[in-house]
Amino acid sequence: MATVGIVMGSDSDMQVMSKAAEVLDQFGIDYDMRIISAHREPEIFFDYAKNAADSGMKVIIAGAGMAAHLPGMCAALFPLPVIGVPMHTTSLGGRDSLYSIVQMPSGIPVATVAIGGGTNAGLLAVRMLAISDEKLLDKLKDYSEDMKNAVVAKDEKLAKTGYRDYSK
Amino acid sequence: MATVGIVMGSDSDMQVMSKAAEVLDQFGIDYDMRIISAHREPEIFFDYAKNAADSGMKVIIAGAGMAAHLPGMCAALFPLPVIGVPMHTTSLGGRDSLYSIVQMPSGIPVATVAIGGGTNAGLLAVRMLAISDEKLLDKLKDYSEDMKNAVVAKDEKLAKTGYRDYSK
Amino acid sequence: MATVGIVMGSDSDMQVMSKAAEVLDQFGIDYDMRIISAHREPEIFFDYAKNAADSGMKVIIAGAGMAAHLPGMCAALFPLPVIGVPMHTTSLGGRDSLYSIVQMPSGIPVATVAIGGGTNAGLLAVRMLAISDEKLLDKLKDYSEDMKNAVVAKDEKLAKTGYRDYSK
Amino acid sequence: MATVGIVMGSDSDMQVMSKAAEVLDQFGIDYDMRIISAHREPEIFFDYAKNAADSGMKVIIAGAGMAAHLPGMCAALFPLPVIGVPMHTTSLGGRDSLYSIVQMPSGIPVATVAIGGGTNAGLLAVRMLAISDEKLLDKLKDYSEDMKNAVVAKDEKLAKTGYRDYSK
Amino acid sequence: MATVGIVMGSDSDMQVMSKAAEVLDQFGIDYDMRIISAHREPEIFFDYAKNAADSGMKVIIAGAGMAAHLPGMCAALFPLPVIGVPMHTTSLGGRDSLYSIVQMPSGIPVATVAIGGGTNAGLLAVRMLAISDEKLLDKLKDYSEDMKNAVVAKDEKLAKTGYRDYSK
Amino acid sequence: MATVGIVMGSDSDMQVMSKAAEVLDQFGIDYDMRIISAHREPEIFFDYAKNAADSGMKVIIAGAGMAAHLPGMCAALFPLPVIGVPMHTTSLGGRDSLYSIVQMPSGIPVATVAIGGGTNAGLLAVRMLAISDEKLLDKLKDYSEDMKNAVVAKDEKLAKTGYRDYSK
Amino acid sequence: MATVGIVMGSDSDMQVMSKAAEVLDQFGIDYDMRIISAHREPEIFFDYAKNAADSGMKVIIAGAGMAAHLPGMCAALFPLPVIGVPMHTTSLGGRDSLYSIVQMPSGIPVATVAIGGGTNAGLLAVRMLAISDEKLLDKLKDYSEDMKNAVVAKDEKLAKTGYRDYSK
Amino acid sequence: MATVGIVMGSDSDMQVMSKAAEVLDQFGIDYDMRIISAHREPEIFFDYAKNAADSGMKVIIAGAGMAAHLPGMCAALFPLPVIGVPMHTTSLGGRDSLYSIVQMPSGIPVATVAIGGGTNAGLLAVRMLAISDEKLLDKLKDYSEDMKNAVVAKDEKLAKTGYRDYSK
Repeated sequence: MATVGIVMGSDSDMQVMSKAAEVLDQFGIDYDMRIISAHREPEIFFDYAKNAADSGMKVIIAGAGMAAHLPGMCAALFPLPVIGVPMHTTSLGGRDSLYSIVQMPSGIPVATVAIGGGTNAGLLAVRMLAISDEKLLDKLKDYSEDMKNAVVAKDEKLAKTGYRDYSK
Repeated sequence: MATVGIVMGSDSDMQVMSKAAEVLDQFGIDYDMRIISAHREPEIFFDYAKNAADSGMKVIIAGAGMAAHLPGMCAALFPLPVIGVPMHTTSLGGRDSLYSIVQMPSGIPVATVAIGGGTNAGLLAVRMLAISDEKLLDKLKDYSEDMKNAVVAKDEKLAKTGYRDYSK
Repeated sequence: MATVGIVMGSDSDMQVMSKAAEVLDQFGIDYDMRIISAHREPEIFFDYAKNAADSGMKVIIAGAGMAAHLPGMCAALFPLPVIGVPMHTTSLGGRDSLYSIVQMPSGIPVATVAIGGGTNAGLLAVRMLAISDEKLLDKLKDYSEDMKNAVVAKDEKLAKTGYRDYSK
Repeated sequence: MATVGIVMGSDSDMQVMSKAAEVLDQFGIDYDMRIISAHREPEIFFDYAKNAADSGMKVIIAGAGMAAHLPGMCAALFPLPVIGVPMHTTSLGGRDSLYSIVQMPSGIPVATVAIGGGTNAGLLAVRMLAISDEKLLDKLKDYSEDMKNAVVAKDEKLAKTGYRDYSK
Repeated sequence: MATVGIVMGSDSDMQVMSKAAEVLDQFGIDYDMRIISAHREPEIFFDYAKNAADSGMKVIIAGAGMAAHLPGMCAALFPLPVIGVPMHTTSLGGRDSLYSIVQMPSGIPVATVAIGGGTNAGLLAVRMLAISDEKLLDKLKDYSEDMKNAVVAKDEKLAKTGYRDYSK
Repeated sequence: MATVGIVMGSDSDMQVMSKAAEVLDQFGIDYDMRIISAHREPEIFFDYAKNAADSGMKVIIAGAGMAAHLPGMCAALFPLPVIGVPMHTTSLGGRDSLYSIVQMPSGIPVATVAIGGGTNAGLLAVRMLAISDEKLLDKLKDYSEDMKNAVVAKDEKLAKTGYRDYSK
Repeated sequence: MATVGIVMGSDSDMQVMSKAAEVLDQFGIDYDMRIISAHREPEIFFDYAKNAADSGMKVIIAGAGMAAHLPGMCAALFPLPVIGVPMHTTSLGGRDSLYSIVQMPSGIPVATVAIGGGTNAGLLAVRMLAISDEKLLDKLKDYSEDMKNAVVAKDEKLAKTGYRDYSK
Repeated sequence: MATVGIVMGSDSDMQVMSKAAEVLDQFGIDYDMRIISAHREPEIFFDYAKNAADSGMKVIIAGAGMAAHLPGMCAALFPLPVIGVPMHTTSLGGRDSLYSIVQMPSGIPVATVAIGGGTNAGLLAVRMLAISDEKLLDKLKDYSEDMKNAVVAKDEKLAKTGYRDYSK
């Protein structure tokens, strides 16, 4: 019984959605990763989204591009939080995906992250689960500490090398 | 058994969708007008879209605003043409509705008209039905003739009044 | 006597418009494919669009980029459905093409598909023709079934490989 | 000790943020509503965001407009979920607020809702809390049921009145 | 035989196009003002644009909104300069009109002015005619002098009143 | 000899530019406020911008709308800091003004503030002058303190009234 | 004494502006091509634009990118037609250039062509000169004829090869 | 004690921010260059921005991308001028960065330069310091002279080579 569902409308979204999976792996959260299209197989999708809560899922991370209906339709069928990940698109840069996901009408929220924001989608799921899980909260604090240290290390490198040699 | 389905996600879309109905009234085409939300009542929506073809519908005109999923989800479940009408929105002017409707992924087309284009949605349905209905085609030609005459009348009025008195 | 006209303003649109032709080939629908510019040869264009219905055409698929007038001018002269395909553009990503095609004034609808949406343009034509052709409707259902199966196969592959090895 | 923090950068955001408070009232969730500007009183803001978790807060709903830094800076200091509400703006329609909130860099997620989406911000907080609170989950199902019934009632009204008399 | 043609697709464009006429009146240039729709009466439009040069027209000023094809189609049929005036639109602010007019493909230029720029369209026509008309050139210099003096007068008023009383 | 020049291209910009003047009044900085159009009186403009530094000006605040060239042309002629204030515009919301001001090519910087940001333009000028004026720096700290207190007062009011009665 | 001035703000605009020169070469119109920056050498620019008419220039074609002030400032100083060519830009695709050129305030028109539209800028200059030059008008008709024939040839090629082999 | 602080949120901004450093090197202004993330290490950031003025800094140049909060948060904590440099972004071209930086609310100005405008950020800092430093002002005039000469040299090259050979 996975705690988090990761679902994408097409395998072209795999690279971005994998980043969410990597975060969950890092935090030791079990997840179920699926390729399900709300448009190309609406009935399979319906079953998935409708039964997710009963099968134990607490959060769904849904990624989609263009006229991205997957996250919003998940949120219509699944009563717990849905995180939407808008995909970059060639013609509109992902504005189409972003607007299709974030501009949900009143009553059906989707927690939207940045265009291509797979990592943040994973982290947001962790934060949600940490509401009732102190160990996760501690791990989140460690994660923040690591991020801080990584920036500090770069800053120290810059102090040593100067900007001209930084990238060499 | 209605030939055309007119469906909108919210009664705030009524003014625009009524224009589609008026066109169908004018052409003597029977239609069924519904308020059904893909987000707020996904199961009712599913039944509607899934059974529309069997109940005799030939075209669905679907209007929605913001993250407008209704037309695209209709097109996922209904095998005949779906016409999408993007609603104007306060913040984004309807770009959100337009992108959510027109930018459908390959395999699931939605015939999209202009933002707020209820009249054109009705006319597009008539044109589709006229493919196999010569009487409708004749009526379309009359409609075009009427449009032409209306412009000609305005042009003649301008010739008489001049631009300064045209609007008086 | 072709049932569908495919027309593009420039041969730079060929790659996108070929996808529409491929769909029609797949469904066994005869079509006539032309390169005609509304701007560079307006009289040839006028003759084409004006006589298309009498020569037996039921649907025109028109693709154009930038200030894309071809689909709208087709719709002004041809009384049956016109499907507009906006081309991607370097500077504006195809927004110019999209707005020039979808934002038609009242009275002259163009059934607009996504930027670069050649395949969907073909499928939309098939859906329109299927209104009065049960065999086409059956083929559309098969097409949907194939799409579903393709996604299911990817989902099964993911289940086997996991996301790390999916793309290897 | 409030479970949810509602914070806005200016009292001009009150109308939108009140909708979030109304939802929490409806679900019986205690919250603390504040006007705190990250720009005009950065130290007060820092104390607020830094101490929120220790004071028992599980979720922060932060609303801001224009170069909206409040939600993102909350997410930098508060380890649990932050929900961002972009405000409508006169000149850019809220795109500035939306981009400033949703386009967070990797590591610091903000769960973004629609421009002006105060109600959905409240509902998203409820969904997050319902992950570990079955009673809230039941209330969410009731809320969905109420939404469904409201649409059904409108649909029935339309069936009775027809579109011409619907708004009278 | 008018020197300048002013043509608009709809009488809703009258207010903007009247400003062009007023400029031509001011400069003593004869013009012919028409309401002709390229979409609703393509044949009347074709005759107009095709015969304009032979009837003595030197410049056409064409205004249109939304998917604005009138200026570009004029430029396809009329060999001398066409000035395009994009109309403001409710949903897209006139970007649709602007892109449909200015983004003409290579070979068919339209001299585009600002959204709603009727006055500048008139002035641009005068500048074009002044290429071969020294008296017009002198009048243009007077017009510039008048503009300069109008700004100088406002500046002097500000110097006297101060900004607090300027608008009283 | 004024320390700051405030210049606008049209008296329609007065309301926004007055806010900059009010800030300078508040900080006791002398300024010279002018209406000068780079387009309508380029020679007067040139003299103004070219001689500003010699007449003792240290900063120019320039406001303009649409194709807003005034700030950039000031920066080409005046060697000290130029602050650009983009005006809101009806059709494009001020994006045209913003891009025309902020997107200056390398070599000629304009310090751009928000659309309609007259107050911030004034404050930015004060900050620049405070680089070498400790008394101004102290006043800026008082100004910040006042801003902080104003927000704190609103927050306290909210604590007393609750959100329902806040605006009554 | 050149009839047409071609001026660009930077030699990075050379590729686009060369297309205008090529058109003028083709039509036998003498021109003067310059690199002059309104921002980096405002006095040289002023002299150029101010003296252009007296030195015999009839039209100026000005190209610029980003906050593109060159065309508008030309139009402020040169009383005859100025044609503006917006350059493509990496970040904003040329919208910044386009808005900075086309959105000129009332009184100072710039005849704007498409982003990167060097060829159309040249053709528009020819059309303007053809107002009073019948030989140029004849050449323009030949040019149109050549464009038509080029499209017809492509259409014939397509008829022979079919779309699959067209690009081979 | 550095006069100018250069700070960036990520080392991916190094290439752009180095251009600011190069300008300061050129003008002999001492600066302190840092990588500090307002999001990933808010406390380090707070200390930096809060103590910058006391440590002698007169200007901060802050670069950031996406939801770019660094410049605005600097301006909230540092009382002297902050120059914001929006970074180009893949999906939105830098509009997200630009809006997040320039659209600051009243009271907290950020002097914003073009997307990717590192050089102009450096020059703007120099201009600010030149308010009270005549030698810097003289150097700025030399810099302008050099820019002018560079354009003149290109113009002379063009005169010699013609456009066809210019780039060879």
